[in-house]
Amino acid sequence: MKTVQLLNYARDAWIPGHGVLAELTSAIDGSLVATIGSGGLDFGDMLRHAREVGGPALRAMTFHDRARMIKGLGLAIMSRKEELYELNYLTGATRKDGWIDIEGGAGTLFSFSSKARRELPDAHVLLDGAVEPLSKSGSFIGQHIYTSMQGAAVHINAFNFPVWGMLEKLAPTLLAGMPAIVKPASSTAYLCEAAVRVMIDTGLLPPGAVQLIVGGVGDLFDHLTGQDVVSFTGSASTALKLRSHPVVQRESVKFVAEQDSLNASLLGPDAAPGTPEFDLFVKEVVNEMTVKAGQKCTAIRRAMAPAEHLDAVEAAIRERLSATRVGDPREKESRMGALVSTDQRDDVRGQIAKLTAAGARIVAGNPDASPGIAGGAFMEPILLRTDDPWGTAAVHDVEAFGPVSTVMPYRNIADAISLANRGMGSLALSLFTLSPDVAREFVQGAAAYHGRMLVIDRTNAAESTGHGSPLPVLVHGGPGRAGGSEEMGGVRGVKHYMQRTAIQSSPTMIAAISEQYIPGGPKHEVKLHPFRCRMSELKIGDTLKTKSRAVTIEDIEHFAEFTGDKFYAHMDEEAAKASPIFEGRVAHGYLILSFAAGLFVDPDPGPVLANTGLENLRFLTPLYPGDSMRVELTVRAKSLKSEDTGVVRWAVEIFNQKDELVATYDLLTENVP
Amino acid sequence: MKTVQLLNYARDAWIPGHGVLAELTSAIDGSLVATIGSGGLDFGDMLRHAREVGGPALRAMTFHDRARMIKGLGLAIMSRKEELYELNYLTGATRKDGWIDIEGGAGTLFSFSSKARRELPDAHVLLDGAVEPLSKSGSFIGQHIYTSMQGAAVHINAFNFPVWGMLEKLAPTLLAGMPAIVKPASSTAYLCEAAVRVMIDTGLLPPGAVQLIVGGVGDLFDHLTGQDVVSFTGSASTALKLRSHPVVQRESVKFVAEQDSLNASLLGPDAAPGTPEFDLFVKEVVNEMTVKAGQKCTAIRRAMAPAEHLDAVEAAIRERLSATRVGDPREKESRMGALVSTDQRDDVRGQIAKLTAAGARIVAGNPDASPGIAGGAFMEPILLRTDDPWGTAAVHDVEAFGPVSTVMPYRNIADAISLANRGMGSLALSLFTLSPDVAREFVQGAAAYHGRMLVIDRTNAAESTGHGSPLPVLVHGGPGRAGGSEEMGGVRGVKHYMQRTAIQSSPTMIAAISEQYIPGGPKHEVKLHPFRCRMSELKIGDTLKTKSRAVTIEDIEHFAEFTGDKFYAHMDEEAAKASPIFEGRVAHGYLILSFAAGLFVDPDPGPVLANTGLENLRFLTPLYPGDSMRVELTVRAKSLKSEDTGVVRWAVEIFNQKDELVATYDLLTENVP
Repeated sequence: MKTVQLLNYARDAWIPGHGVLAELTSAIDGSLVATIGSGGLDFGDMLRHAREVGGPALRAMTFHDRARMIKGLGLAIMSRKEELYELNYLTGATRKDGWIDIEGGAGTLFSFSSKARRELPDAHVLLDGAVEPLSKSGSFIGQHIYTSMQGAAVHINAFNFPVWGMLEKLAPTLLAGMPAIVKPASSTAYLCEAAVRVMIDTGLLPPGAVQLIVGGVGDLFDHLTGQDVVSFTGSASTALKLRSHPVVQRESVKFVAEQDSLNASLLGPDAAPGTPEFDLFVKEVVNEMTVKAGQKCTAIRRAMAPAEHLDAVEAAIRERLSATRVGDPREKESRMGALVSTDQRDDVRGQIAKLTAAGARIVAGNPDASPGIAGGAFMEPILLRTDDPWGTAAVHDVEAFGPVSTVMPYRNIADAISLANRGMGSLALSLFTLSPDVAREFVQGAAAYHGRMLVIDRTNAAESTGHGSPLPVLVHGGPGRAGGSEEMGGVRGVKHYMQRTAIQSSPTMIAAISEQYIPGGPKHEVKLHPFRCRMSELKIGDTLKTKSRAVTIEDIEHFAEFTGDKFYAHMDEEAAKASPIFEGRVAHGYLILSFAAGLFVDPDPGPVLANTGLENLRFLTPLYPGDSMRVELTVRAKSLKSEDTGVVRWAVEIFNQKDELVATYDLLTENVP
Repeated sequence: MKTVQLLNYARDAWIPGHGVLAELTSAIDGSLVATIGSGGLDFGDMLRHAREVGGPALRAMTFHDRARMIKGLGLAIMSRKEELYELNYLTGATRKDGWIDIEGGAGTLFSFSSKARRELPDAHVLLDGAVEPLSKSGSFIGQHIYTSMQGAAVHINAFNFPVWGMLEKLAPTLLAGMPAIVKPASSTAYLCEAAVRVMIDTGLLPPGAVQLIVGGVGDLFDHLTGQDVVSFTGSASTALKLRSHPVVQRESVKFVAEQDSLNASLLGPDAAPGTPEFDLFVKEVVNEMTVKAGQKCTAIRRAMAPAEHLDAVEAAIRERLSATRVGDPREKESRMGALVSTDQRDDVRGQIAKLTAAGARIVAGNPDASPGIAGGAFMEPILLRTDDPWGTAAVHDVEAFGPVSTVMPYRNIADAISLANRGMGSLALSLFTLSPDVAREFVQGAAAYHGRMLVIDRTNAAESTGHGSPLPVLVHGGPGRAGGSEEMGGVRGVKHYMQRTAIQSSPTMIAAISEQYIPGGPKHEVKLHPFRCRMSELKIGDTLKTKSRAVTIEDIEHFAEFTGDKFYAHMDEEAAKASPIFEGRVAHGYLILSFAAGLFVDPDPGPVLANTGLENLRFLTPLYPGDSMRVELTVRAKSLKSEDTGVVRWAVEIFNQKDELVATYDLLTENVP
């Protein structure tokens, strides 16, 4: 391809940087790919644009609007993925590596979009937890809510996954209603820039929602406030520099960091050579060394085995590595491509030298070899070994961010826990064992140091998503050395870009603020039965009030006979009276639920397709023979199950003849949207 | 009282500090109360003791064990409260002020203890969210868990609430299974030390669980790691200093800060003079100025009113302030006591001078007056006013941490939102309005800047807990200037001292790790019906497998007739077939639930007292006439409702004759513990 200057996207326009430009080269052969620079940009103005234009536009959309938007962005990435794969090869990555980055990135948008439409309301405010009763009569209650932060999210991304790394941050940010300024690592910025172009071209993003800086960020950090978020992925040293910025500290700017960490994988004490777990472990270590040429923040850097099996582990990994073909990533036969640049390769060689200087031995690969294409950043995978992991501190502290791992022995589970935790915090850890006791002891002893842990055995390996793969529905991050933060994890990740606030007021006020029905809040009694309405026609707070029906002793006896539920509290007056709860025989809870449905169900076919579930049912006041019951059915929230299936959450309140609450629950129905 | 040297509590022993001691004086008359110092303590060793002795001991306890422990601590505080009230007066606080501190502190322990026993399992691991399906066959799933962090919590507390301030941090820390090192502010350390003594004397705390430093923390911060937590309450400047400590930054130490902020209260545009909301606003502003002599991090510093009502607001506040009697806090007539020290009073006077220099006018009180007892730190409450809140930046930035507030006008709701947010982050905001529209617009526009917001009106004021009172069940904290953190909020606060980890494995492994039943995980079929067992005799995973029963078309018709639920999907073969969900008439969901109870209920009186609720019900496979159904009822988790009422959560799985899952839910029963 011809050399181009990559453009910044600032204030909704593509803008070339001025002044000195940096040159980006191909990982495959060192040829010039593009130039970049951000000179002349007004970074304070970009932040203002995000806050004053992008933020208000995104906040005016509901969670569902934003979910549809990011799905559209993912579809655009997929439809133009071949353009991106072409650029992907220049980063040294194979097509399989690129699949993780490009299609994995689009998949992350799809996952977040789907989670958001299922789990978030079609509103602007997200409720957190249940109502907290704060007063006797219920006039004053508490409710936690999340609202969109009103600043900008600054995303500082790593070079290794220029598409996925951007999208795993953009998805939760945009869903939260927050605009983003994306700053990719320079060496692969051309792939990120292309992906941003694909998204801007869709026209789906409102003005100011996304901006791009190719090159340095200048004085941007000087303009940050406590409403902004910095989300960083990369090295611990760069994270420390950014995190310590005086404005970040002074303004309590939320700082999210995913740092490369010394991730470990363990062979369980039960997993002797010859067991499936042994083979799975060896395969995973080699896989993590070679996928993306080991340039993954989650890659296995420390492979630990029972001392008596260490020789066998080393031999098996060596054998498997010897079959790994390193070469041109565009060729199908290449199992491992190039590192991102010769600079990066030099860095990895330097880290390997530190490890060997500290006492680790190279047992496979030659770090000085240069396989593949001349001028390219290829290297052989390198396996190191130490037999004294407590005396060789470097293996727990020094990260070689390439196809490099160290095998080491442990003595027993306690020693294995200590060694795993000696990394002082990691993103991912895997344990290969068939023993639930080993899993419990190890995971309970080590979980505080690790953000994600896999326990793999012969029963789940075939379906395992692998040690190194962060998933959009699970948190990604880890304590200490790994950055002390979290990303993704479904809706958890969205909340990182929102502020949680405790609201105290009356149910009426909290219903108005949260755009949802709150028990005790206002209801709008409707004339038309709500089962006759499509979901879009139902309004939050619409209420059906049913007529009343009596519950007799005959009903209870009949129900008991019919269902077989002859619990003494329903059948035996003396025993029921003797219980600490009841004053005599009471109606079955399920009888009450069934009669309630009889009262509120509208029988004819219509937009309500089925009762699919029920939540938070509480029986509050016993219903005695001779009492009567009536129901208020109120639209509480609406969400989607799929494109053409709506889910309505109804608040059901059952009252007795004294207007005491007999039971409350949320009813879920599948509806025509 | 005679002068004593306060002792440190380090490595489970009371130890005097060496070297230079600081002198603490009475707020009432300046007399010497106590001396303090921490010279000679080995701070690194204290951290090691917490991590190696306190942590393991606390982690060996379950959440319920820890909950019982902190309840015991609260009972001890209550039983010896009069000792603490005597010391409370020396801080300048009235008995009413002391009630917030001492009995409010004990109440916080009780609240957390109760929440923990209701909402946390009697186990060591806390599950977060639902199982995430990660594979088709279900052999590989995800589950987030929380485990205790393995370091120490360092609590740096403010002078104003020496008991509550300590306990609101200790409760969630100890519940999380983490040991604490408490460092109170010097000026009121004698009251904190006395409260620590009360707790140590109970013998309830395991060795290493709590340590106390009276005096400086020396090189303690140099020894912190990513498993430790620093939780700070106090000024923004001290927070900045501690937060920026190089070790905190380098190790990604979790840093929680509650900083004094410029909290606002607003009179709504509808709340004209003569309305109840107007009077409530005036009362609350004066209350917040004078309780604890205004030395509250949540106190109202900025009182905002519609421009046309500002004169009336000023006049009403002045009138009410003029009736406030300042004097000896031991006397019942005193409505406001002294500031904590003459140094603090000097500081407040200096801040007032900055506000007047910036253009605010004093409209009530004389800052140079020295009412009360000679030598004491008394001062009059000071009301300031600015008519140009955008031109007088100091009123949003300069905090006078005493009985000081500034009234100012706003033009409209948008202006009010901007002014409120101009504080750049606050702990608490209150709005006095009767209008849900005003509440929605204001709160949605401002919530991102405030940690807690109250909307008060005539309907809820009588039951309101007030602007300035953080509650254990609600989060306390705020963004930006308020520190960017959160504390309390029930179980939310416990999680700040735990690490969230995503676990990926088979249901069997995750059940072992989490000490809870996980669907798809192992079950232990029991012979004795589990309804015959007390809660303590039930084991997680114990399962009752019922026999099978057929469901006929007659059952369905009978049920429809009996309950009145004649939804077409049950009654009309043609219409049911036409729906996108069903292949023909299906059994009612409530029929299935009712028959399930008939299958699993054991009728005779016993330790299961009642079915109190049901959660997470999902209907997964329709049950057609002619199908049969059976139930597996499994003990999932156990918790407590009160001292003598247990709650068992049962996993209910209903299968059809093809062993397909028809429905799943959690059943809640009230049990004899």
